[in-house]
Amino acid sequence: MSLHQLPIRVRYVECDPMGVAHHTAYPVWFEMGRTELLRSCGGNYAELEREGVMLAVVTLGVTYKQPAFYDDELTLETTIDSCGRVKIEHSYVLKRDEDILATGRTVLACLDQEGRPREVPELLQEMFSTNK
Amino acid sequence: MSLHQLPIRVRYVECDPMGVAHHTAYPVWFEMGRTELLRSCGGNYAELEREGVMLAVVTLGVTYKQPAFYDDELTLETTIDSCGRVKIEHSYVLKRDEDILATGRTVLACLDQEGRPREVPELLQEMFSTNK
Amino acid sequence: MSLHQLPIRVRYVECDPMGVAHHTAYPVWFEMGRTELLRSCGGNYAELEREGVMLAVVTLGVTYKQPAFYDDELTLETTIDSCGRVKIEHSYVLKRDEDILATGRTVLACLDQEGRPREVPELLQEMFSTNK
Amino acid sequence: MSLHQLPIRVRYVECDPMGVAHHTAYPVWFEMGRTELLRSCGGNYAELEREGVMLAVVTLGVTYKQPAFYDDELTLETTIDSCGRVKIEHSYVLKRDEDILATGRTVLACLDQEGRPREVPELLQEMFSTNK
Repeated sequence: MSLHQLPIRVRYVECDPMGVAHHTAYPVWFEMGRTELLRSCGGNYAELEREGVMLAVVTLGVTYKQPAFYDDELTLETTIDSCGRVKIEHSYVLKRDEDILATGRTVLACLDQEGRPREVPELLQEMFSTNK
Repeated sequence: MSLHQLPIRVRYVECDPMGVAHHTAYPVWFEMGRTELLRSCGGNYAELEREGVMLAVVTLGVTYKQPAFYDDELTLETTIDSCGRVKIEHSYVLKRDEDILATGRTVLACLDQEGRPREVPELLQEMFSTNK
Repeated sequence: MSLHQLPIRVRYVECDPMGVAHHTAYPVWFEMGRTELLRSCGGNYAELEREGVMLAVVTLGVTYKQPAFYDDELTLETTIDSCGRVKIEHSYVLKRDEDILATGRTVLACLDQEGRPREVPELLQEMFSTNK
Repeated sequence: MSLHQLPIRVRYVECDPMGVAHHTAYPVWFEMGRTELLRSCGGNYAELEREGVMLAVVTLGVTYKQPAFYDDELTLETTIDSCGRVKIEHSYVLKRDEDILATGRTVLACLDQEGRPREVPELLQEMFSTNK
């Protein structure tokens, strides 16, 4: 499935003195979206790491349109935009009902356990392209 | 001063199972950089908020080049790129000695206590343009 | 219901270089447990705050027995131990299947919007005693 | 030195909708206090971990007396209470000027890289007892 929908309940600790979710909570949710998207494709990040495949964020972009509040029930839509031999691109849309609160984009690089660049495992490339 | 240098010691809690600072720690450091840049210009975010001036991040961009490790001593350089009537742009360079670990950019919008757009206070516009 | 069970999926960002959930993630989960326990009793923390009733943690205790790992599915059991006129006590048991990973206890004080002590609203006292 | 004093500037992200530092920020500061206390005794946690010595929190207790606010300058006093063959006890006093905002206590257990209990290295026992 190219698009995964993750329900998110905004935690109290994620909110700041303005009474809204702090802008650094969003990339945490994006990471959860990636974890669940991969699971929905039959993969598993925890297993990947045990096999020495690390996926590190090399680019992060977020556009904030409307605030999210404590206890809000949000939906995060996570999409695979591309999965090449060395990089994986995701995009994100965060919604409360039909309102778009934020959009985002990440680029991940594949690293080995010593932090050196390595190829994205073929299984992962197939998983993501099949499910696109 | 257009450029502010903030020393940062990487906290254990900021590091992840890859043994490096998690990518969501960087925008937290950028926020600290903005706080200290403003202080170095004679302003104060805490006071601004008490006066009903909220500065909300509307765009965030980060490029990660090299990892930071627990207990590393880093330097964050924060710069005002522009301060207009409704938006303030900052850019960031995170270094360990002479190595650039990451660069970033934020756009802030000025809001009132109800979260509605308002003008950047003139005092702030002057402060930032004088110090550019 | 005196006991509420909350499923928790351990987030990557909550884990540290030892590869386990950082000890400060647990009181965050406890807070989520309190939010959901109150909801299951018919109450709502977000509404309480809008009505000027703040519940502040004055005592926190946690005993860590076994580590939790990234992507683990845990269950947090949250219990109301007592709800008096000025304080509310909760206790917590965090489990992975039948294994107890940690136990905890908090005492909350009731404050008004200026941070001054105030009585726990009667409705809340009734809600918690009825449901004990 | 048995007591270490660490200056702490309260970060915006550490504050919650009540406008005060969230209670989970305190154990993060305690961890920083332990890191700096050890450094002041001539040791280094990052090195310990590289040598396979992990120090895991097994008990945490915090008593919150007064709130801390965004941008406050606090002082954390960290003390070694005892360092035995398997456990290390610290206590903490968090102050703003002469006001005590919170007190705390942790017990650490010494683990190897696989998370099994091991003895506290003799060097560490000596370091802490000499400096008591």
